[in-house]
Amino acid sequence: MDINILIIGGDSRIDYLMHQLVCDGYKVKKFSDSDTLKGALDNCDVVLLGLPASRDDKTVDAPNLKESVLIKDLMRLMGENKLLLAGKMSERMKAVADVFSVKWVDYFMREELEILNAIPTCEGAIQIAMEELPVTIHSSKAIITGYGRIGKILARELSCLGADVVVCARKISARAQARADGFKAIDFSELKENIADSTVLFNTVPHMVIDRSILLEAKGTLIIDLASKPGGVDMEAARDAGVDVVWALGLPGKVAPVTAANIIKETIYNIFNELGE
Amino acid sequence: MDINILIIGGDSRIDYLMHQLVCDGYKVKKFSDSDTLKGALDNCDVVLLGLPASRDDKTVDAPNLKESVLIKDLMRLMGENKLLLAGKMSERMKAVADVFSVKWVDYFMREELEILNAIPTCEGAIQIAMEELPVTIHSSKAIITGYGRIGKILARELSCLGADVVVCARKISARAQARADGFKAIDFSELKENIADSTVLFNTVPHMVIDRSILLEAKGTLIIDLASKPGGVDMEAARDAGVDVVWALGLPGKVAPVTAANIIKETIYNIFNELGE
Amino acid sequence: MDINILIIGGDSRIDYLMHQLVCDGYKVKKFSDSDTLKGALDNCDVVLLGLPASRDDKTVDAPNLKESVLIKDLMRLMGENKLLLAGKMSERMKAVADVFSVKWVDYFMREELEILNAIPTCEGAIQIAMEELPVTIHSSKAIITGYGRIGKILARELSCLGADVVVCARKISARAQARADGFKAIDFSELKENIADSTVLFNTVPHMVIDRSILLEAKGTLIIDLASKPGGVDMEAARDAGVDVVWALGLPGKVAPVTAANIIKETIYNIFNELGE
Amino acid sequence: MDINILIIGGDSRIDYLMHQLVCDGYKVKKFSDSDTLKGALDNCDVVLLGLPASRDDKTVDAPNLKESVLIKDLMRLMGENKLLLAGKMSERMKAVADVFSVKWVDYFMREELEILNAIPTCEGAIQIAMEELPVTIHSSKAIITGYGRIGKILARELSCLGADVVVCARKISARAQARADGFKAIDFSELKENIADSTVLFNTVPHMVIDRSILLEAKGTLIIDLASKPGGVDMEAARDAGVDVVWALGLPGKVAPVTAANIIKETIYNIFNELGE
Repeated sequence: MDINILIIGGDSRIDYLMHQLVCDGYKVKKFSDSDTLKGALDNCDVVLLGLPASRDDKTVDAPNLKESVLIKDLMRLMGENKLLLAGKMSERMKAVADVFSVKWVDYFMREELEILNAIPTCEGAIQIAMEELPVTIHSSKAIITGYGRIGKILARELSCLGADVVVCARKISARAQARADGFKAIDFSELKENIADSTVLFNTVPHMVIDRSILLEAKGTLIIDLASKPGGVDMEAARDAGVDVVWALGLPGKVAPVTAANIIKETIYNIFNELGE
Repeated sequence: MDINILIIGGDSRIDYLMHQLVCDGYKVKKFSDSDTLKGALDNCDVVLLGLPASRDDKTVDAPNLKESVLIKDLMRLMGENKLLLAGKMSERMKAVADVFSVKWVDYFMREELEILNAIPTCEGAIQIAMEELPVTIHSSKAIITGYGRIGKILARELSCLGADVVVCARKISARAQARADGFKAIDFSELKENIADSTVLFNTVPHMVIDRSILLEAKGTLIIDLASKPGGVDMEAARDAGVDVVWALGLPGKVAPVTAANIIKETIYNIFNELGE
Repeated sequence: MDINILIIGGDSRIDYLMHQLVCDGYKVKKFSDSDTLKGALDNCDVVLLGLPASRDDKTVDAPNLKESVLIKDLMRLMGENKLLLAGKMSERMKAVADVFSVKWVDYFMREELEILNAIPTCEGAIQIAMEELPVTIHSSKAIITGYGRIGKILARELSCLGADVVVCARKISARAQARADGFKAIDFSELKENIADSTVLFNTVPHMVIDRSILLEAKGTLIIDLASKPGGVDMEAARDAGVDVVWALGLPGKVAPVTAANIIKETIYNIFNELGE
Repeated sequence: MDINILIIGGDSRIDYLMHQLVCDGYKVKKFSDSDTLKGALDNCDVVLLGLPASRDDKTVDAPNLKESVLIKDLMRLMGENKLLLAGKMSERMKAVADVFSVKWVDYFMREELEILNAIPTCEGAIQIAMEELPVTIHSSKAIITGYGRIGKILARELSCLGADVVVCARKISARAQARADGFKAIDFSELKENIADSTVLFNTVPHMVIDRSILLEAKGTLIIDLASKPGGVDMEAARDAGVDVVWALGLPGKVAPVTAANIIKETIYNIFNELGE
């Protein structure tokens, strides 16, 4: 564990992560305005950026810095002997890294991170439902659109809390799986008639599946959209129909930042392990 | 269902309840400042008070009224031919009712209400834990003190959400039940060593079981006390030890008022049924 | 643990129990035909009988002995300084023990044993259903009559396996509990219409609740009666109606003798503990 | 539903299936020794074979027939206008079908069938464990090797029954999923130390993962191998080590033939639907 890690930017998750790395015995430094990039890089083996690594494709996302760190400069100074760990790297950032032969891994693309992040995402979704609804999850009718990683965990947890869970999925095999897992399964063609008496709908499908025709039937149903951009709900139609929609993005960092940090840490250790460091 | 119900006072739950009773076809009137008590009573068969029915043992609890309704007057005017339904009646109120031969039922004392209220109580407790903790319920260590109605449901739901649940109970048979239900069970003598690495502790025992000696080990543990007055946590010792305690009372009305109203409604219908009305 | 235990009789559970007691460091002797009762008793502190302790109210139940041990003789020779542990003691046996001032505990009457025995009972019931039915538990409709210790665990486990569980109970509060636990709850007056399309019915009520009128609707339903004598099913009416009934008694000893022995052991240790031995 | 179905051969599942198809309104005929193949085919739209369709690659598997039906003859006489539905078709059988331009679908290769069959497979595995073990599933330590369709359902169900479940999987992401689902997850390198105190191991990996070195540690552990040929356990090493192994193949047809038939029926209806028949 004789690895020196330089952290540049990142949100509160990255601060928790820094703390955990230090506890585990790593030498970690957080880049500050008083440092020079060259000097800070000299002493490190690994550069760790936040999640997302950049919001403008030019500078590293670093709310704590007054002066921005240019991606181009970072890559040029890193060169080929250091490892870059960054979350949600854009194609452009990857291209720049490759130009300067920087060895990089996007930890957000690792399957284990995606799987483990489903847990705080589902808890956050349930917390929102609990906060927004004047009724209990218990005895409510909850529809889940999509039956991938998040849909599966959400269905199980809502059912445990006593909800009557209906899974809506396009593929025959996804519906078969939902039934094998103990839930009622419907096709999107049956969604309109099912939404009318439902309490809450959680969408996990990342394209517009909750359209105007469905929203017109949904009055009284709370919709929680867990899909990343562009989302799965026709927001304008929802406004027109008077349907409440909560678009919940980045839940792990918001509802359980320490757990989120821990998941990133574990993913990074797996990366270290595979690289033999 | 040719029953006329007069509602006097009560919180938002009672307003939801009124709405539900009307939907089910009952004739319901809410007493207002412009009514006379005598006149309002003339046309009703049942008088429904809130939960609690009174906070001062003299007047009906009625935040919506400028002029208070005296319990004594109400009872005198009701007489023997009407039914009084009230929540958490004090011994004094029951005595006054008996003086005027008023037929009364305290719906809060009905076993089915207590059982069904455990659901919103547990969901509220889980919501608080989700809101307060920087980690997920999943993978956290949750201790539950007491294994009665609330403890049992809470243990099951937390376990479903992925918590590592430890039940702490005094009676051998309660611990045997907890183990049969799939949880680790400990005696109160083992609580001190178990609290140290726990994430959250839910207390359901209605007398002080979380004392200073335990709190001294509990740094970092969030304590959620679900016990009614006087509570189960030594609050002064908690402050001294820097332990966060949330004393969560009356959760059903706060986190799920519509469900809470629905539970009262169902209880009232059971009462009607048994009285043959 | 300097306790000498003399075991007289008992079934295979008691043999497993003997093995476990020896492993835990107790000195245990099993009474054989070559022993004299007086001699065997001389060296022991505790006498342990099987479950039931006697089947004829005169002799100790001991399939392994050619010559029977008379209860009367045993009690007389034990006297006041030894402890008798026996299962399902009859009133008569207790009376004889009291005559000779024998200190006795019926371990079968201990609440923790009853609670823990519910587990092998439920697993045994599920095993029988799996063996007898040509369909899976998953997607079947399972009715459970009675919602006490066994009913509650059975409902939870069947539901986990994917059954559609209906709980039938007489008391309003039991039905409220079943609903709080996530199951559909019906009264016995609704059993007739519910049994028609059910796959299996588990009875836990120890008096005749599954009568002729219900059985006439039950064609095709497998009935598993878990109630101890006299049972809860009108067997003659079942035969007439062509309904399959499995009367499953003593499941713990049959389906999981090692677990059953372990439960008795734990109960005995609790008894030792409370007696301060 | 004006579809004429000719069934040739098959086991008891196919007989149950025939009954269900008739109930649903299809015209179904089972080929018998008194029929001529040409005559029987004349009146049908669909030919349905069993599972597997053939055991010798030459004749249709048909225990009920004295005279075998040659695959070659069947295909020749079917021609291009009928649909062949068969289970586990060999490459050779598919080739013959293609020679004669027979339209065929192997229903066993459909994803929904594979998913739904996981349910009776898991129940069968649990039934075997219940029958073979002298202890309850509850409180036992159950290891599951492999975390695919069957492993996931089995882990959930065993855990619900109170087992302490350990999932052993090779891929980091599979282990992450197992942990997200609430189970302890280990790598195959940790299996040896975990098997020693385990009660039962269920293997779902279809190549030899339970080798001699692991079996040597496994004394006392019951092994249930759910992997299709060649299986996942070194049987010779198991014999040498005195480890009990149950190789459980084709569980759906054995433990729940009616459910198994129902799953095939549903799959066939999906096929009909997609072909627009």
